[in-house]
Amino acid sequence: MDMQKRIERALETALKHTTAGGQPPKIAAALRYAVFPGGARVRPRLCLAVAMACGDDNPQAADAAATAIEFLHCASLVHDDMPCFDNADTRRGKPSVHAAYSEPLALLAGDALIIAAFETIARECVATPHLIAPLTGTVARAVGMPHGLVAGQAWESEDDVPLAEYHRAKTASLFTGAAMAGAIAAGADPQIWRAMGDRLGAAYQVADDLRDFAASATELGKPVGQDSLNARPNAVAAGGLDETVARLHDMVSQTVAAVPDCPGAPVLRDLIAGEAKRLMPKSLASHAA
Amino acid sequence: MDMQKRIERALETALKHTTAGGQPPKIAAALRYAVFPGGARVRPRLCLAVAMACGDDNPQAADAAATAIEFLHCASLVHDDMPCFDNADTRRGKPSVHAAYSEPLALLAGDALIIAAFETIARECVATPHLIAPLTGTVARAVGMPHGLVAGQAWESEDDVPLAEYHRAKTASLFTGAAMAGAIAAGADPQIWRAMGDRLGAAYQVADDLRDFAASATELGKPVGQDSLNARPNAVAAGGLDETVARLHDMVSQTVAAVPDCPGAPVLRDLIAGEAKRLMPKSLASHAA
Repeated sequence: MDMQKRIERALETALKHTTAGGQPPKIAAALRYAVFPGGARVRPRLCLAVAMACGDDNPQAADAAATAIEFLHCASLVHDDMPCFDNADTRRGKPSVHAAYSEPLALLAGDALIIAAFETIARECVATPHLIAPLTGTVARAVGMPHGLVAGQAWESEDDVPLAEYHRAKTASLFTGAAMAGAIAAGADPQIWRAMGDRLGAAYQVADDLRDFAASATELGKPVGQDSLNARPNAVAAGGLDETVARLHDMVSQTVAAVPDCPGAPVLRDLIAGEAKRLMPKSLASHAA
Repeated sequence: MDMQKRIERALETALKHTTAGGQPPKIAAALRYAVFPGGARVRPRLCLAVAMACGDDNPQAADAAATAIEFLHCASLVHDDMPCFDNADTRRGKPSVHAAYSEPLALLAGDALIIAAFETIARECVATPHLIAPLTGTVARAVGMPHGLVAGQAWESEDDVPLAEYHRAKTASLFTGAAMAGAIAAGADPQIWRAMGDRLGAAYQVADDLRDFAASATELGKPVGQDSLNARPNAVAAGGLDETVARLHDMVSQTVAAVPDCPGAPVLRDLIAGEAKRLMPKSLASHAA
């Protein structure tokens, strides 16, 4: 099955469990709205690509891990867009969840997605119960305290921000978690995938800074200039545009080089190269080709 | 060990994992503030009391379940107090988390507690990995969609609210989950504990309505009259004061009667009777003695 179809099917199956009947209808609609249609699904694709590169021994566990990763990503977007955070009224070219459904429902939808992420791992690993603890731990570390996504967002409330730790926690941690969870699901050693996840995550953060700085709102589907508006560190503001574009190209090469040798390596390298192209704002495509 | 001490120690151990070093300091403080000092810890006490009534075969798993239940309860309070929800500036007699630490940190602290709840179960069940899936599933169903705590809160955004389902989801579900998780942790059948959990949860909801209606803010440690202010259903407003007090006494008796016969039944019945006394507002203590 095509990887994208496999991800959408897994997300659909997991979402159906949260709306199995008798639930309040608005939050059910808000949950669907938060998950479908998705963005590029780059994190679950990374998770599945690593699982496949490792032999995909337990596809149901890999699907569960990919779903958990994407649910947690969607939850972070929903909460991040709320007025007390980025106050972003649009996301992926349409009203963000709180704008479409209200703040209370956005808060609850994010909570429900976090819960559903862990529930999905426990439910779908019925044939591989030994994978539940390592998958749960890996995914929880990627998003929780002290060094996951939530910690990254919490650094924005501090006066003294260690930049590398901030970026690693806010963006790279979920990429690293996705790669390692994919390996775990396939019964492989997750540690050899850590470096690639870290580097891809770091590249993604720089790309995101570039997009926030240089892309148009239409291209991005969400408000631009948010970093400057929210006084958040931004690589372009710190290092200049040309230098940042060159740095991103370097980081992508490093990521490709960090893919361990394995039968699925070519697919992964293609995924990374494709991502790198997709992430570069169109207005910068001619820079440092 | 005294049950209360056992709970505080388990919470402390789990919280330390979220602040193991290098984390942003404000959210670390906010997390501690959200969990300590606690309220009556009635849900984790229920969880441990059921585990002990069933023989407490796996105390580490029981501690993990109790911790997860309390973390999720604390997370719900933190998010519930936020301006977009109840807008309550005080909780347990002190500023609520968003009032003390800011809205973004309250949002993130709640998220971090939800993640830590599931992480704790997976981490602490290292000697009993077969318990991770049933504990995670039971706890997730108690708080998530379609019938858990989050669903209960989401009913408040609907025009047409099925009252019994609303109360069961918002309040009873976590009691039921606590009782069933305690049984699971002890290797016992959770189903025979469902009725008692349901009834205790229902009684607790009525008691909470009574307190919201009749107690003073000083006695309660949080704003009163919130149900009326937020146009939420309240048993006293619907049925009258005397009738509601009498109904609460009835419900407590039914809960005590629903405790299955087992060696630990007397402890549990005491716990329930003690709770019933604690929950009755002092100004109503003379009603229907």
